[in-house]
Formats: sequence, C-alpha cells, structure tokens
Amino acid sequence: MTIDDGKLVRTQGVTAPLGFRAAGIAAGIKKSGKPDLALVFNEGPDYAAAGVFTRNKVKAAPVLWSQQVLTGGRLRAVILNSGGANACTGPGGFQDTHATAEELAKALSNWGTETGAGEIAVCSTGLIGDRLPMDKLIPAVTEIVHEMGGGLQGGAEAARAIMTTDTVPKEAAFHHRDKWNVGGMAKGAGMLAPSLATMLVVLTTDVVATPAQLDEALRNATGYTFDRLDVDGSCSTNDTVLLLANGASGVTPSQADLNAAVLAVCDDLAEQLMSDAEGVTKRVHITVKGAVSEDEALIGARAIARDSLVKTAFFGSDPNWGRVLASIGIAPIELDPNRVSVSFNGSPVCVDGAGAPGAREVDLSGPDIQVLVELNLGDGEATVRTTDLSHGYVEENSAYSS
Amino acid sequence: MTIDDGKLVRTQGVTAPLGFRAAGIAAGIKKSGKPDLALVFNEGPDYAAAGVFTRNKVKAAPVLWSQQVLTGGRLRAVILNSGGANACTGPGGFQDTHATAEELAKALSNWGTETGAGEIAVCSTGLIGDRLPMDKLIPAVTEIVHEMGGGLQGGAEAARAIMTTDTVPKEAAFHHRDKWNVGGMAKGAGMLAPSLATMLVVLTTDVVATPAQLDEALRNATGYTFDRLDVDGSCSTNDTVLLLANGASGVTPSQADLNAAVLAVCDDLAEQLMSDAEGVTKRVHITVKGAVSEDEALIGARAIARDSLVKTAFFGSDPNWGRVLASIGIAPIELDPNRVSVSFNGSPVCVDGAGAPGAREVDLSGPDIQVLVELNLGDGEATVRTTDLSHGYVEENSAYSS
Repeated sequence: MTIDDGKLVRTQGVTAPLGFRAAGIAAGIKKSGKPDLALVFNEGPDYAAAGVFTRNKVKAAPVLWSQQVLTGGRLRAVILNSGGANACTGPGGFQDTHATAEELAKALSNWGTETGAGEIAVCSTGLIGDRLPMDKLIPAVTEIVHEMGGGLQGGAEAARAIMTTDTVPKEAAFHHRDKWNVGGMAKGAGMLAPSLATMLVVLTTDVVATPAQLDEALRNATGYTFDRLDVDGSCSTNDTVLLLANGASGVTPSQADLNAAVLAVCDDLAEQLMSDAEGVTKRVHITVKGAVSEDEALIGARAIARDSLVKTAFFGSDPNWGRVLASIGIAPIELDPNRVSVSFNGSPVCVDGAGAPGAREVDLSGPDIQVLVELNLGDGEATVRTTDLSHGYVEENSAYSS
Repeated sequence: MTIDDGKLVRTQGVTAPLGFRAAGIAAGIKKSGKPDLALVFNEGPDYAAAGVFTRNKVKAAPVLWSQQVLTGGRLRAVILNSGGANACTGPGGFQDTHATAEELAKALSNWGTETGAGEIAVCSTGLIGDRLPMDKLIPAVTEIVHEMGGGLQGGAEAARAIMTTDTVPKEAAFHHRDKWNVGGMAKGAGMLAPSLATMLVVLTTDVVATPAQLDEALRNATGYTFDRLDVDGSCSTNDTVLLLANGASGVTPSQADLNAAVLAVCDDLAEQLMSDAEGVTKRVHITVKGAVSEDEALIGARAIARDSLVKTAFFGSDPNWGRVLASIGIAPIELDPNRVSVSFNGSPVCVDGAGAPGAREVDLSGPDIQVLVELNLGDGEATVRTTDLSHGYVEENSAYSS
C-alpha cells in the first residue's frame, strides 16, 4: 500500500472508522472548567486491541492498569482524563484508576452493553503527584456515556478533552479505497521524547484483525513516528498509545497494508505534535545518513535533537553548525570527524569536518529547518523530529504546576 | 590531608605557586578588543605535566596538538586564546596551532629560555568553525612573552584573557602549611557537561612530582569535579585541563596529599564555573543516594541535571518534584519507584514514590537548590552540580555566533 491507495485527512479522528463512538466533556477536573474527560467506545463486532506504553520505570497508575488490561488483547472502551496524571499517587491512585474503570463498566452495562472493567483502558495526563478529584470524576463517567455520539463530532470533542498545554486538538484519519479506515487522536506538547512522550494516542480501525496483527502494526508505526519525536529529551510517566479494531468494515487487509495505514496516521499525528510543541517557533527535522547502522543514525540524530545549544541556535535562526558537530561528536557512535558533512535546508555548511563557504550566511529565518548530517561511513539513516528551545518553552515550563 | 591543613583562596591563581609566570593581553582576536591571549610559563627546575582532554570525537586542533605534546609528560608553557575555538578548521587549523607553538618556542628561546614547540601546550576557546586571525596572533606571541610577570597580577590577567561568555574570571589556590602550593584558573560558562565542558583549566604546583603522580591527582580531581558539572548536557570540542609542576618548593608531598590539594582547587573552580554559568539564576546540587553503585548514582543525578523540565521548574522556583521522578525513572539504572524519596533543600517532597504533605509549598525562591534523591537500594552516592534553564540561557545561546 502507498499513501495514494487512500486519503489522509486531519478533519476526522477516532470516529472516522465505522462502529466507534466518542465524547468529550468537562468533568471539573481542570480548574479552568475546560473539557477534561474523553471516552472512545468500540461498538463491535470485534474488540481486538494492542497498546504501547512508556518505558519510564516510574509509571502512572493508569499505565499500570491499562498494561494489565491489554494482556487480554481486548478493549471495549478507553476513558481518558486531562487535568491530572495520577502518577506517583501510591496505592490510592491505583484504586482511583480501578474505580474509574469499574464505574465505566457499570455505566456501559446500564446503557445496554454488558462490559467488564477488564475490557476498559484508562489514560491520564497532567501534573504528576496529585490524586484525582474522584468526587467529580465518578459522576462524570455516567454522564459521558450518555453523551457518546457516533458522528465525527464525538471524535472531535474527545480530541479536545485530552488537551493539556496543547493549543489545538490533533486528529487524523486514513480512508483506504477498499472501504476500510484508520482514525486517531493525540495529545502532547511537552515532555515529548523517545519511548513516546507525555503523549496519549488512541487509534481506531474498522478492519478485521487479531490482537497480534494490531500489535505488529502499532509497534512498527510508533517506532518510526512517536519514538522519533524528541522535543526536550524528557519522557513521561503516562505515555500510552492504543489501537482498537472492531471489524465493522468486514475487510481484512494484508498486514503490510494495515502497517502502512497505521504508520500514515501516526506519522501525521507526530507531525502535529511537533508543530504544537511547547514554545515551538521552528519545526526541525534532523536526518543522519551514512551511519554504520540505522540504530547509530538514530542515536546521532537524537543527540543533536536534544542538544540545548543546537536548539537555542535554531531559535535565534543562527546557522551555528559547529554546535551540530560538537553534539554528534559526543554521541556513542562510530564517526570520523574528517568525513562529516552537514547541510541546513539544503545548503552545505560543513564539508569533511570543516566550514563551507557562506556557511554563516545560510538563512534559517523560516519556520522549518531541515538538518542533514552525512557521516559517509555506511548506509544507516534515520530522521528525528524536534523543535527549537525558545523563551516560550522556558516560560511555559517554569510556571506549569504553580 | 584535609582542607584544614592549608588555606584555600580565590584571590590567587596560576602564579600562586612558586616559579610560575603568567600574562594576559589583547591580541585583537576578539572584535571587542578585550583580552584574548594568555600565557602560563613554568620557570622550573622541573617541567612535569599531565593533561585531561575532551571525550568528544570532534576535537579542536589545539586539543589534538596538546594531547600529542603531553605524551612526553613535560610542559614549559601553555598558551591560550579566547575569541575562536580553532575547531572544525581542517588541516589549516592544525597548522595554525603548530605555528603558534613554534612561535612561542622561538620567543621564549630569544628571551633566554631554550624551548622547543614540543614542550608547549595550546588551548583555544570560542566559536567553532572559523580560522584564527594568525596575522594578529603571531606578533602577539612575542609581545606576551615580554609581558610575563611573576607576581599575582600576571595570573589574574591570564584568567581574564581566557574568558568568553564568563562574566568573572575564575581563580583558586591552595596553600599547604608545609610550604607547597597548588593554583589554578578556569573559564567556561556554557557547553558545560561531563567529559569536562567548554572549559579550559590550567593548574600549577611547586611540588616535586612525576608526570604519573600528576596524572593520578588530575584524573581523580576532574572525575569528582568538572566531570560532575553539567549545565546543558553539551560537551565541547576544546575541553582541556592541564597540571604543571616545577618542584620549586622542594617539597614532595604524599600522593594522597597531592590528590587532596588538587581536588580542593578543582572543586572550588567547578563551583565558580557553576555560579557563573550562562543564564544561571539557581545554583543546583543534585545528590542521588542509595543507588546500587556510585556509577548508577552518577547516571541518575546526571539524568536529572540534564532534564529541561526539571531545570525550567527550578527557574520558576517551582517545587515540581514529579519531574524529578519522571527524569530519574527513565535513567538506565536499577530503581524501585515505590521506594524513591526526594527532598528539596531538606524538605521532603516525595516519600516512597508518592507526594509528601506540603510538597507544593516548599520555598525554592532562593539562589541555591539542594535536591536529594534517596533510592533506598544500596550505598551508591554521587552529586552533580547544575543550574536552572532560564530566559537568560536561551537569550545568550540564541545569539552567540551572530
């Protein structure tokens, strides 16, 4: 499959595939009164699912819960809250997650769909360390079940309700010409790093697929997209990416086609996350080519993406290529300093380890910066998305909890 | 030896020990006209020396030169310039370093001290990627030899001439009660990270010691001081720390005493570097205790020190301890999230992985922040010095080359 076998849109999300409902409401978790509770509901007939979670050893209660649930490869619903991460909240925090799932199972059963708590994933995002206001959350669970809509509006509302410091909701959907679909929504603006990010993503599809097939498609897609998005090198306690499939289209695509469609949606969501990252003024793609392996290319690209001096230079539209050399020079990869070449937006700034003529005059004043580092050692290549390090980033992150 | 066996002062530097001369002049390398060339000269009778250099694979020409020179374990002089790193400058840049050493050897020989280029270390600091203005540098080499003074003024002038974005010169000296001395000067304000930093340090001592003894003292000291100073995770192409001993005091201290004195001077210089780091508004000491080993404690402390979200929170005087947990949780070390405790300036903010009462009210408004993370797994302990991530840091580094 190629992207030409269908159509990618940003106007639709988790309710783009057949047989999914969603909703987003204000439960009162956020003091601002903005929407803070989202629900994605799978109408069936299948309930296959897969998930990828943060690699942080400090895992939020909802991550511990949802990892457990996903061992069954089956999900009926996902409930997500913003306004609190429910991380580092001890046994009480885990009980809160469990109670939320139990409450949703009861509400869905009352609504007419017999559901167990073990078929429900829970996601949370927000400040680490505080308990959730369960007195507000629990009654809102029944309310949101009644709000669920089957149309695109439900998906849009859910995407809005998971936002924290995001300035825009993030949705994407791929409609395959053979009448099957993949949709998704994402949130995340800071603490974006490998092993995902403070990032919650729910993907839905109406294909017929086993949990193992979904798992393969999901790991392939996250490996190339969210895992290669690195805003600040930080990694959240709450990162979760879920993929739900209900078979409602009746179509069973090949594994390759499913992989490609899930990758296309994730890639677009990752681009949206980068573009809305905290304090972003530059969208930066860093490609390392000619490494001895793809792994080493990725390590090198990530080292550059995380370097504060590179990122502040880009904020200043400063083609300070020496910082790129210094940055990749300390990465634990094979490298011959005299064979490294670098270009910014296609203009050579460093050739064979030394400055190129005109390097200091390269114009980086636009919003997009493409960095290409050629190591000239092998065939390994990888690209990492990042942003600049701006006053806006400092401002936003120095006043987040207070 | 303890610090009580002598006296540590900040008013003296490389000319505090007997038998060293130094000078600092304006050679015209910096466009500002500020001092930019420094010389440290060893009058003998011994010329033993040791050096520690950047671990960056991209090494500046003067680093490649000085590493080569140091294999002989002997130095008569060190010449240092600010205003240009002479890094990523190709074979021509290496020839410039060589020519500088040759010129100094000639000038010292003319002055009456027969010297070879192979006894001279060269250090450079400043912007990566540009060739040095040799038409200005070469005549200044003879001039600075004539300027050399034996008193404390020469050392102070040298310390001033190696500054780049430093706002104050950095000197320290330890006078042992047994009539021997260690002195030092340092520069460095950004790109401060493990494996040293964009940091140049010259240490002098009048003890009698072999190159091997100096090497042991120097590696021990840098391992505990400059290697544990991490302002922005960046590592320079030019980092160099040199230790010169001339035996002028006639005293041969024990290895342990020499280690302790060199460590005391390096520790004080590292504290000065932290306090003058680019954009610093908070001096931060991060201690990890109870790790399974000292190495793991260091990895954990460094991970926290490098985390942009932790550093911006400190800039905002925000006791956002969840970011400390998230940060150490992704470090590649052994860790049980339910046994981690954290305190800020002695106030517990997290106990056994969950928030402590009053954690959000801890006052971090002062200039010093002590972070203590207790892993409760073993005896490993390490402390890393860092700073906050401020608007000043972004401002300074977004406009450095332009």
